[in-house]
Amino acid sequence: MDIPITRMKALFNPTSVAVIGASENEAKLGFHVMKSLTKGGFPGKIIPINPGSEEIMGLKTFPSIAELSYDIDLAIVVLPAKMVPAIFKECLAKGVQGIVLITAGFREIDDPMGAELHEQLAGIVNEAHVPVIGPNTFGMINLHANLNASFTPEFSLVRKGRIGLVSQSGGMCHLISFIAMRERVGFSKIVGIGNRLNVDFERMISYLMEDQDTDVIALYMEGIDQPRQLQEMARGLRGRKPIVAYKTGIGNLGDQASRSHTGSIAGRSDVYSGAFSQAGVLEVRSVEELLDTAKALARFPVLPGNRVAILSSQAGPGISAADICQRSDLTIVSFADQTQNRINEILPPLALRTNPVDMGPAWYNSEALVGIVRAVMEDDNVEGILLFMMFASANVDSIKGLSCLTENKRPRKPLITCLSAPPGIWDEHINRYEDAGILVNFPTPERASRVMANLNRYRRLAHSVPSA
Amino acid sequence: MDIPITRMKALFNPTSVAVIGASENEAKLGFHVMKSLTKGGFPGKIIPINPGSEEIMGLKTFPSIAELSYDIDLAIVVLPAKMVPAIFKECLAKGVQGIVLITAGFREIDDPMGAELHEQLAGIVNEAHVPVIGPNTFGMINLHANLNASFTPEFSLVRKGRIGLVSQSGGMCHLISFIAMRERVGFSKIVGIGNRLNVDFERMISYLMEDQDTDVIALYMEGIDQPRQLQEMARGLRGRKPIVAYKTGIGNLGDQASRSHTGSIAGRSDVYSGAFSQAGVLEVRSVEELLDTAKALARFPVLPGNRVAILSSQAGPGISAADICQRSDLTIVSFADQTQNRINEILPPLALRTNPVDMGPAWYNSEALVGIVRAVMEDDNVEGILLFMMFASANVDSIKGLSCLTENKRPRKPLITCLSAPPGIWDEHINRYEDAGILVNFPTPERASRVMANLNRYRRLAHSVPSA
Repeated sequence: MDIPITRMKALFNPTSVAVIGASENEAKLGFHVMKSLTKGGFPGKIIPINPGSEEIMGLKTFPSIAELSYDIDLAIVVLPAKMVPAIFKECLAKGVQGIVLITAGFREIDDPMGAELHEQLAGIVNEAHVPVIGPNTFGMINLHANLNASFTPEFSLVRKGRIGLVSQSGGMCHLISFIAMRERVGFSKIVGIGNRLNVDFERMISYLMEDQDTDVIALYMEGIDQPRQLQEMARGLRGRKPIVAYKTGIGNLGDQASRSHTGSIAGRSDVYSGAFSQAGVLEVRSVEELLDTAKALARFPVLPGNRVAILSSQAGPGISAADICQRSDLTIVSFADQTQNRINEILPPLALRTNPVDMGPAWYNSEALVGIVRAVMEDDNVEGILLFMMFASANVDSIKGLSCLTENKRPRKPLITCLSAPPGIWDEHINRYEDAGILVNFPTPERASRVMANLNRYRRLAHSVPSA
Repeated sequence: MDIPITRMKALFNPTSVAVIGASENEAKLGFHVMKSLTKGGFPGKIIPINPGSEEIMGLKTFPSIAELSYDIDLAIVVLPAKMVPAIFKECLAKGVQGIVLITAGFREIDDPMGAELHEQLAGIVNEAHVPVIGPNTFGMINLHANLNASFTPEFSLVRKGRIGLVSQSGGMCHLISFIAMRERVGFSKIVGIGNRLNVDFERMISYLMEDQDTDVIALYMEGIDQPRQLQEMARGLRGRKPIVAYKTGIGNLGDQASRSHTGSIAGRSDVYSGAFSQAGVLEVRSVEELLDTAKALARFPVLPGNRVAILSSQAGPGISAADICQRSDLTIVSFADQTQNRINEILPPLALRTNPVDMGPAWYNSEALVGIVRAVMEDDNVEGILLFMMFASANVDSIKGLSCLTENKRPRKPLITCLSAPPGIWDEHINRYEDAGILVNFPTPERASRVMANLNRYRRLAHSVPSA
């Protein structure tokens, strides 16, 4: 089986989409798929297929794809499993470039009929080199093409961005997208690979490495069929685009006895961790860390080194950040003389003016804060900056000072922040700075600091020589 | 020095408040304090003190507290440090029950004059047994009394609740409150103890243990003067009300050389962890974990045992939760026969119907989901429940089924959830369930699971015999 990259591109960029099993009945997934396509603003042709309807959501409906007088790029299939082999044949006859198979009930069920059907389908499409997302998936979304080929119309609310998300769990994909909506993280593609008829992690990674809308690849994984193959492919692509992976299922859930056998659990987890590390894949431990890290890598793919500055308008957040830096491989570096002199001019002599800088004595002086940030930004000793500022009534305008950073046209150092205020007070400014690309903001200093530590881990992973 | 609990009660429940250093100038903290009191809806008398004004924010202003013809319960002081000793004497003459000293520039500055002033103040108030919050603090808030005695009016936006927050960092207190606003976590008191003239963690804990509005005590700590004393007091109060503590400053930030000396850093961290554990204090590692854990303990103070159920509408979130349960001391228990039979009736035979239950085959069937949750709720084998449900267009109404749990009048088992949807879709239902006390919801399955693990850690801490 070999699926050329051109076919993957066609799958994600169709000009016409047929929904085989489209429905006007809200209890059917075919209804929700139609809603996703139409509400999502897909600019191409949408063709509902249903022998029992003449029109669905205002669109002329055909009894079968075979009766169309023209070819179709993408077919989304939501019919019962046993009908799918015949449908696949019809699809191929209509020249489809790709298929999204939402239907469940193949390999994942215990009934041997499921596995047989799976093999039968694989035979049909593999021979024709047609890629299939699924079966047993919610579908996929190409945000930049306004293509929502899923049963969840709300995926279209996710911002367009540079992260390609590939997930083995539909639930996790939904969750990550909902958090992304709240935290304004953008995606290029959101893909539920489901039970992987012929599009697995490996194929998705190869494709996203070529995809011009994707800068960072985020993976949610439970178990993989061919870990060695994935590892070798990722190793070969090391450093081209960052890959961040969250792997769950470290224990054997089906086996009560082995559950308490922590030795074997830890062992399995270690095996994966080792493989990820050798392949240059950055492993993380939660959906939040996956999203946080991908968000930062999409903006600041390169942390040049491990020497960071911590600047905090209030002491506490700086101390929590220093703890995390000290536990990781980051160095809280000494400033260059020029920088230190500049800070000494700005802050009173009794403040903690060395790195980590407690800007507390100037916490409501916007000019002083910005002066310090600018001085540190220009310090060659510093390769990344953590900046924390908590709102108080008296410093409400301090946030505005950061706008001067948007004027600086020189290459930017990673500036990872926790700027926090009650809802509605600073959001507009923070959003503007994020959109201008000068910083990425996180809800807590700990999450910001862990992200900086992860940028540094990725730097090491991407540049180290792959071990045998 | 001994400060009776009645004085602490009076400090937090004044009927009259004087703001010494009140101002109409926005550049002065005395302006913001006045705004906090007036906008916060404090129902008692507010008396601005400023020799240069006749009226501030519509309130008659007096040149000094000495000129008042009546006594004052609480004085908030925002004057320069060197003026404070004389002011304190005036306050005592007016019978104040407590003082909030926002002014900085005492012990925390290197100038020996600062430490001298600190001692001088301590001598004045300790003799009179008058408690002082500060110096060098944003102040304190008693939400149930609508008393915002701080320089940040926005603290009044925090919900009234049952968590008492005591922090050594103003920045962290602000941050935690802002997150609490977004996540609807309620507090009883928010206190920045600052440089602790005579109200330290120990005294705050003793008071909050007696406070009828507080069920859980949350602490943010950097360093403490008398760790042994705090430890012994907490040990004596073990199990009365949960105490959750987040301690930062594990490394020596001032000393570049010792920073890379991870052995000593880990050692210091271990010392604190051991002390917390002996004192029955639940240690956490981030502001989010502090808030999450306190929120859950305020609703479900008692997890009867470590046997939990994981119920997930989609497989992924359940797997991530099982990982965390397996890494902690929680047991994913076998259901009682009756429960298992009921689940077997509801879910098709091919689903994973044992604990952790993959409710995937019924993910858009509200009745089935609720039937499973109810059956497990009634299972005596199960002592806590993790429930995960991710929105999709087709299961939008599934959330409504949980309302049946509000009708059950029997004592409730801890139900920790991650119910997630795009903004605005499920929020109203989740808020209603949280307000009804049937569940506490978290943004991710990992955070929900860590909270369950912490409820279990607290159960062990609270009930174990204190070691010598």
